Amino acid sequence: MEIKSSTKYFAEMVGTFSLVLFGCGAAVVAGVNASGPAGLGLLGISFAFGLSVVAMAYAIGGITGCHINPAITVAMLTAGKIKANEALGYIVAQFIGATIAAGVLYLIQSGHPDWSLGEYALGANGWGEGYGGGYNLTSAFLAEAIFTFLFLFVIFGTTSKWGNGTMAGLAIGITLVLIHMVCIPITGTSVNPARSFGPALFAGGKALQQLWLFIVAPLVGGIAAAIVWRMLEKK
Amino acid sequence: MEIKSSTKYFAEMVGTFSLVLFGCGAAVVAGVNASGPAGLGLLGISFAFGLSVVAMAYAIGGITGCHINPAITVAMLTAGKIKANEALGYIVAQFIGATIAAGVLYLIQSGHPDWSLGEYALGANGWGEGYGGGYNLTSAFLAEAIFTFLFLFVIFGTTSKWGNGTMAGLAIGITLVLIHMVCIPITGTSVNPARSFGPALFAGGKALQQLWLFIVAPLVGGIAAAIVWRMLEKK
Amino acid sequence: MEIKSSTKYFAEMVGTFSLVLFGCGAAVVAGVNASGPAGLGLLGISFAFGLSVVAMAYAIGGITGCHINPAITVAMLTAGKIKANEALGYIVAQFIGATIAAGVLYLIQSGHPDWSLGEYALGANGWGEGYGGGYNLTSAFLAEAIFTFLFLFVIFGTTSKWGNGTMAGLAIGITLVLIHMVCIPITGTSVNPARSFGPALFAGGKALQQLWLFIVAPLVGGIAAAIVWRMLEKK
Amino acid sequence: MEIKSSTKYFAEMVGTFSLVLFGCGAAVVAGVNASGPAGLGLLGISFAFGLSVVAMAYAIGGITGCHINPAITVAMLTAGKIKANEALGYIVAQFIGATIAAGVLYLIQSGHPDWSLGEYALGANGWGEGYGGGYNLTSAFLAEAIFTFLFLFVIFGTTSKWGNGTMAGLAIGITLVLIHMVCIPITGTSVNPARSFGPALFAGGKALQQLWLFIVAPLVGGIAAAIVWRMLEKK
Repeated sequence: MEIKSSTKYFAEMVGTFSLVLFGCGAAVVAGVNASGPAGLGLLGISFAFGLSVVAMAYAIGGITGCHINPAITVAMLTAGKIKANEALGYIVAQFIGATIAAGVLYLIQSGHPDWSLGEYALGANGWGEGYGGGYNLTSAFLAEAIFTFLFLFVIFGTTSKWGNGTMAGLAIGITLVLIHMVCIPITGTSVNPARSFGPALFAGGKALQQLWLFIVAPLVGGIAAAIVWRMLEKK
Repeated sequence: MEIKSSTKYFAEMVGTFSLVLFGCGAAVVAGVNASGPAGLGLLGISFAFGLSVVAMAYAIGGITGCHINPAITVAMLTAGKIKANEALGYIVAQFIGATIAAGVLYLIQSGHPDWSLGEYALGANGWGEGYGGGYNLTSAFLAEAIFTFLFLFVIFGTTSKWGNGTMAGLAIGITLVLIHMVCIPITGTSVNPARSFGPALFAGGKALQQLWLFIVAPLVGGIAAAIVWRMLEKK
Repeated sequence: MEIKSSTKYFAEMVGTFSLVLFGCGAAVVAGVNASGPAGLGLLGISFAFGLSVVAMAYAIGGITGCHINPAITVAMLTAGKIKANEALGYIVAQFIGATIAAGVLYLIQSGHPDWSLGEYALGANGWGEGYGGGYNLTSAFLAEAIFTFLFLFVIFGTTSKWGNGTMAGLAIGITLVLIHMVCIPITGTSVNPARSFGPALFAGGKALQQLWLFIVAPLVGGIAAAIVWRMLEKK
Repeated sequence: MEIKSSTKYFAEMVGTFSLVLFGCGAAVVAGVNASGPAGLGLLGISFAFGLSVVAMAYAIGGITGCHINPAITVAMLTAGKIKANEALGYIVAQFIGATIAAGVLYLIQSGHPDWSLGEYALGANGWGEGYGGGYNLTSAFLAEAIFTFLFLFVIFGTTSKWGNGTMAGLAIGITLVLIHMVCIPITGTSVNPARSFGPALFAGGKALQQLWLFIVAPLVGGIAAAIVWRMLEKK
């Protein structure tokens, strides 16, 4: 029995909402030390983003394949594994989910006594002086493109005829943990245009100006992986 | 062969006992730095609560479905997946298990040379000035309701016809890890009325006065998820 | 085809060797901050012990059931799931494996420029003033007995007719992670007489004087769980 | 249908590339504290190396068995589980993948405002004064040989007739996490000649002079495990 498109789009929206709320939420609410127990640190934030994908992969994977990332949807389109009109529906749902998540995070943070909407607020991505380790544009683009390539390489591999369906969601989410483990000081880690869009919309300023890279570089990496994997699978 | 109700209630009691003893125990005994190795921090405490659900899901999931949380039992009742009288038995067992766990933690802490029963002792939940990050009531309610919604969304999804039975327990526990990663500075993270009840009973004071929110908000979120999921599954 | 006893004993020996070398090794070599990256802390040490069980459960579980802990073997004997003479062989192998691990750790530490064999060296267990959080004997005994009970409760549950064979090893190892998350400041966490024996033999002094508790309390908790579970499984 | 050799070599190359880029990348980019959230620390770096193996095991395990480590390939050759000419192809691919990863990491780090290619740069392995905890040559050799032995023991066990195919990749990767948890202060942890080769080529100096140990010790440990396991499996 075919699953209805509306069910699929709703699932993609909730999935992307979760990814952004858990990932950016962990970074913003609990990332650094406050009083009491030590903050999550780079390890905790990495787990927050990656484990969100693990949770959602098993919750909605059977409905949509759990893309929750336009770079994945475009790569799947390139590989011929999704139809164009459905891909468009997925992508719209992903941007809506990410935006709502950033809005909810904004609401929650408004209840904090000392909070104000700073530059790169709500977990927005960026690069250069004033962001993370201060890496330059070249490093940022390289990292986002190469890590999206590896992300999609694992996605195509684990869901291929050579993969293991039960463990695919775990392996894919773990890959996103790994990507964040390296990439947070460089760009905050996007590899997902929707995840970057939500916070940037609220943060404005430099986050919005630098948003283009977090759309272009993940798409480049994702499409490259689709092309490479197509060659591997072809006899 | 039908499993006896007494076996089910005992399993729910032990399961909730474990969740509270491991989760609150980790926070109270090992959460912050003492001498020697660094304390667990927010990441460790998050893992303690969430991984308890993973362990219990595979230990008693085949017996009761491993609710160990009244918000889950009420959501299952709303979704028509458990009978009312059995649901009541589950909930009573959950409150008993959580209370015994708080009592055992009290006993263990009594053997610590510097311990005294402070405000919000034994891992009690709360909000506002003097609790965690000092978030206000609105943020606390929003967070508890929305995160319980997502928790139940994953539970319904992973155990639906589209889910993967083997990985459901892992995905559900990981979702509770994620919820704690964001929510500890806001409310200490409940999403579970029984988990809040046990420690509040011993801590008294503000923990007991604020207990209502940790009953109402998780129920609101859980029931909402049951209604949404019912619509998704219906053709 | 029956697996040879010598193969089983060898597997139990290597398994216990791994548990002690990884667990105590992590605590001793990398637990606290040195120069460079932050030390493992209580979270890392907890993962080291528990994940050793996960790794070994899947490596030797098909050969011996992966006890690598005399409290588990005695509980299995109580539950009638292993024969007495084989249980004895397992236990001897476990003590030998743990002792060799402590010896190897001693050798490795001898190559460290500043190392000396202090009190409670090599990850030995203990309690009271001068150990961890300074918890007293009652707390130590309570914690070791109750947590071994929960450990065996999960082991019996996950390997019962209601369990999931594929995920049992993961759930059991995760439970050992959880136990360490609470218990390290109290006793360093044993729940395993062999794990306590190896380091105590080399450390001597108070570690050896307090060794009795780490034999008695885990056995009490393990036997209790076997009795409870027998009642649950009986119709 | 036989998988083409070129596909296998490509998969081994990408797999080893990932291992080195994620593992060494995490250590170099995010290992220690900078501004903002706390750095990954020894726990995070350990997860980065080990979880890379988990991700790759499920992505390319069905294609090559996911060696991505010459010590594993040589052990498999010793155990008669791979042909010599294919083993050679694997090993060449592994060294190429590791070298490209070190090169990419070099490129990314070049975009950091304060970076310079120090001694033991890019996550190179080493020992003695000026490296990690300052452990001597004997400790370094012992640790690398014994931990590679345990690594291969788990690999042979989980992929044997007594193992669980679904969970093997997880157990193997977790073992590499555990090895790093103990071994980083001793040698930085190699147990993999290719992983040591890539960074040493760029770092030069002492990293290159000490490279021999990270080829010899892992091979000794790996071959020993192959011999032991052959005896265990033989009736």
